[in-house]
Amino acid sequence: MYRSHNCGALRMSDVGANVTLSGWVQISRDLGGLTFVDLRDRYGITQLVFNIEDDQPLCERARKLGREFVIRASGVVRERSSKNANRPTGDIEIDVKEFEILNASKTPPFTIEDESDGGDELRMQYRYLDLRRTPLQKNILFRSKLAIETRKYLDGIDFVEVETPVLIKSTPEGARDFVVPSRMNAGQFYALPQSPQTFKQILMVAGYDRYFQIVKCFRDEDLRADRQPEFTQIDCEMAFVTRDQILDTFEGLTKHLFKSLKNIELTDFPKMSYDDAMRDYGSDKPDIRFGMKFHYLEEDMKGHDFAIFDSAESIIGIVAEGIADEYSNKDMKKLTEWMQRPQIGAKGLVYIKYMADGSIKSTVGKFYDDTFLKSLGDKLEAKTGDVLFILSGELEKTQKRLNELRLEMGRRLGLMKEGDFKPLWVIDFPLLEWDEDSNRFHAMHHPFTSPKKNEIEKMMSGDHETLKNLKADAYDLVINGSEIGGGSIRIHDRDLQSKNFDLLGFTKEEAEAQFGFLLGAFEYGAPPHGGIAFGFDRLCAVLNGQSSIRDFIAFPKNNQGRDMMIDAPSPIDDVQMTELFLSSTHTATEE
Amino acid sequence: MYRSHNCGALRMSDVGANVTLSGWVQISRDLGGLTFVDLRDRYGITQLVFNIEDDQPLCERARKLGREFVIRASGVVRERSSKNANRPTGDIEIDVKEFEILNASKTPPFTIEDESDGGDELRMQYRYLDLRRTPLQKNILFRSKLAIETRKYLDGIDFVEVETPVLIKSTPEGARDFVVPSRMNAGQFYALPQSPQTFKQILMVAGYDRYFQIVKCFRDEDLRADRQPEFTQIDCEMAFVTRDQILDTFEGLTKHLFKSLKNIELTDFPKMSYDDAMRDYGSDKPDIRFGMKFHYLEEDMKGHDFAIFDSAESIIGIVAEGIADEYSNKDMKKLTEWMQRPQIGAKGLVYIKYMADGSIKSTVGKFYDDTFLKSLGDKLEAKTGDVLFILSGELEKTQKRLNELRLEMGRRLGLMKEGDFKPLWVIDFPLLEWDEDSNRFHAMHHPFTSPKKNEIEKMMSGDHETLKNLKADAYDLVINGSEIGGGSIRIHDRDLQSKNFDLLGFTKEEAEAQFGFLLGAFEYGAPPHGGIAFGFDRLCAVLNGQSSIRDFIAFPKNNQGRDMMIDAPSPIDDVQMTELFLSSTHTATEE
Repeated sequence: MYRSHNCGALRMSDVGANVTLSGWVQISRDLGGLTFVDLRDRYGITQLVFNIEDDQPLCERARKLGREFVIRASGVVRERSSKNANRPTGDIEIDVKEFEILNASKTPPFTIEDESDGGDELRMQYRYLDLRRTPLQKNILFRSKLAIETRKYLDGIDFVEVETPVLIKSTPEGARDFVVPSRMNAGQFYALPQSPQTFKQILMVAGYDRYFQIVKCFRDEDLRADRQPEFTQIDCEMAFVTRDQILDTFEGLTKHLFKSLKNIELTDFPKMSYDDAMRDYGSDKPDIRFGMKFHYLEEDMKGHDFAIFDSAESIIGIVAEGIADEYSNKDMKKLTEWMQRPQIGAKGLVYIKYMADGSIKSTVGKFYDDTFLKSLGDKLEAKTGDVLFILSGELEKTQKRLNELRLEMGRRLGLMKEGDFKPLWVIDFPLLEWDEDSNRFHAMHHPFTSPKKNEIEKMMSGDHETLKNLKADAYDLVINGSEIGGGSIRIHDRDLQSKNFDLLGFTKEEAEAQFGFLLGAFEYGAPPHGGIAFGFDRLCAVLNGQSSIRDFIAFPKNNQGRDMMIDAPSPIDDVQMTELFLSSTHTATEE
Repeated sequence: MYRSHNCGALRMSDVGANVTLSGWVQISRDLGGLTFVDLRDRYGITQLVFNIEDDQPLCERARKLGREFVIRASGVVRERSSKNANRPTGDIEIDVKEFEILNASKTPPFTIEDESDGGDELRMQYRYLDLRRTPLQKNILFRSKLAIETRKYLDGIDFVEVETPVLIKSTPEGARDFVVPSRMNAGQFYALPQSPQTFKQILMVAGYDRYFQIVKCFRDEDLRADRQPEFTQIDCEMAFVTRDQILDTFEGLTKHLFKSLKNIELTDFPKMSYDDAMRDYGSDKPDIRFGMKFHYLEEDMKGHDFAIFDSAESIIGIVAEGIADEYSNKDMKKLTEWMQRPQIGAKGLVYIKYMADGSIKSTVGKFYDDTFLKSLGDKLEAKTGDVLFILSGELEKTQKRLNELRLEMGRRLGLMKEGDFKPLWVIDFPLLEWDEDSNRFHAMHHPFTSPKKNEIEKMMSGDHETLKNLKADAYDLVINGSEIGGGSIRIHDRDLQSKNFDLLGFTKEEAEAQFGFLLGAFEYGAPPHGGIAFGFDRLCAVLNGQSSIRDFIAFPKNNQGRDMMIDAPSPIDDVQMTELFLSSTHTATEE
């Protein structure tokens, strides 16, 4: 037997008991006559004491225990003279009578502490050591609990978890697929699913009514800081439902998760149309923990001989509170440069400072006198001390840039309060996006999304301009500016689905080859249906007020898609290549 | 709103209520004045009634509803005059006031009934229709519940579910890997996991103490009838445990699953050594619902001038009860032929019939007189009416063949009783298997399995014969002759692991390239650990007394590894090939 208790179990009520513990040496302190060892496992830390007067050889051996040694120790629980109130086991210690080293440890390449001294790459290479650190362990345990609570809730309202296949079919729509060469079917490939989209729709056609799955999905994309080639979704679909029934169901799930994991009671989630979100925040995932809404100033500010504004498609402002006096010219210059970085690409930044003393300082004083600017400030409810920032230019670009400024000012002004959660449904997304490069429509959500019911007729017969303005029955759940999930009511009619494929540039043959099974299924009694998918990794992070998903994944890959610990991907041998009917066009000299 | 209730909800207490239901037309019966429609969804079937006297146009429209049409119907719940006691909703029906066709259906290519008239391939192609059949739907719902109860149990005893990666590294040991070419790492490949074995061990090194995961695994093997290229495991690992603690834990899980899903209370599982299982049943997964143990007859039957027996390494018999008079010579001839099929490969079948009238009929009367055979029968407790079957030859082959005969006789004699579950732990498997073809040892379980503690010294220094007889701390859970799961205590010592790789024919460089991360991890405080994995698909089938796993997988592949519904795998386009640095050695003419 390795242990009678774990390292988090013992309390005052156990004093006097003979116990055996196993775990890792967190730290060892040699105080001459006494040697203290903190023994750690997943459940906690218990203090071991070795007394040189009781057993000198034992104490000598204990002194040699290094960090991260694994030991089994037996002894008697006793009350501590100096208690540690920060630790559940802090009232007791173990007077050790014997111990055994189960495994030694080399000195770890970085410290196993809350704040480690190891760099990212090193910690990924030694992931098994990094995973011992408390913050990471908390994250991984949190993730497990989040999955449990998700399943508990969905099972409780008749959702059935169905495993959909991982070896499926490659389709060119959407992101790039990872593919798997087939040995038994020469020259053919499986693809790994980007989502179980068509399978969950098939399950609705098959009558499963309410489906969910916590499922791995795959995208072979160039990885940004916070993307992973494999990621996890809470994937859901329901039949015979309206949009609002879906939103209510997953609002219920979200509230349950916040309540059960964070003890936070969320109030009902507001709904905002995509058009309103773009107009008021310049983003389809606005952080509504704070206001700072957009003001459209074309009517006010054109016609004052300021050529830049006069020629601009749009002039948009936001009011940042209380920084007029605090921000020096130098600060403003820096902020302007920040906005001019290529990631944002603003040409410049117009600002109007309403100073505490009632004066106005502005970059456009040449064109607008103080009376004008004062009355503009009044109209926008800018108080003394506030700054009005203004960007101008092409509508979409200006919205996008001002969104970045709004978020940055929100951060600087402390308006994104930790522990404050403001979920939001963004609804009525456009159905189609025109892509100038490929000169065709793309699906804004995906090709299976239904237009809103009253738009179907327009979709079947509409001209280009009409098509561009079609609204879909699609929705996103946004929390604090992060997109947590998205979904839609799906098309369940063969003709409408064919029309959509047609608009998206599929030939009849391509549509049939790739999605014939779905079109076929729609001919055998497909019910109305819709669904949603939540990004599980993202949900973990957002619930903990963190921005990186990597810390919630046990074995993440780096930005080159490599697993640093196991050193994958790696070359395979020629026999494997031959069996798969493959040869490599890559030669070693290219490396 | 599509429905106020589902099709399984309404009862007598709802009589008089206005309700709306949606579902599929299971069957429509036109009785002149009345038209009855059975409306089906996942939850049940409710009878709809259309009365021609109340609303002729409505009734006319109802008459045209075909099988599998999807409709929404509103009306009033009323008591049925002729009730259907077999159906929870059988006391009521809906007097329909209006209905709407939500989607039409072509006539399905096979009947959606418990026993369908569709062939295997057709039903796989139209899986969405096959999945509507009650038996299949029950299986899929059962699978969901089995996963829920598994998680509930393991979560309740501190197991944490951790997702391990799907894109990992190819290793030549074991079965063939599916591989995934990397676009970002030219010439390199990921592999899909055959199991998360090394990752779960890493999690033990990382201190997670108790890990589980219900996880997809992948093997690119030639598919037998009941194998799938992707399959699901309940994968588990524990630290600081002894073998018996692991067995107790997963015996507890198994008992919980039988109790919660089948209301069956299992008694404690017996343990049988691999050696005993092979000796008594000729199989490492004996079905112990019945006896019919092996008798070794070399001492009794050699030396009677029967050359075949005299020269045989082994002579083994089993007693089949009560068939001596029933089985004619012709039956025996057929049974002998059955044993001689290439799948089994017996040369012949010796039998001794102890007839009801006390006489003895035997194929070896020439060599053994009745007195001898009578006393042999007495010794083996063969009663009048019983038959003693005997096979001879090389030990292992004879055991294997007699195992087949024992199972066949068990089936014929009705000894494998449905609803009778007899779990068994098979323990103390050999560590290594000598493979004559490759002239090297293979791991019987896998390369990470520990020898039993008292064998470690022998392993580090033993000669060939010693190594062949080493026992591992490995175990299988067998239920009714099906292997449900297997596992072992793992090696957690770097030197021992290196020695094992060495015995398995790895060079130092190969071991380092493939498993360096694990060997490295063992140097930083690896705790003693062990685990188990259950075949989840198999467990579903066995709990339902069924033999095929395919009926418990929503979207299985056929024996060529094809998904018949989506028609995968399939060719990918040249752009994808180029991006992956691949060209195909397969030309269309080879097809």
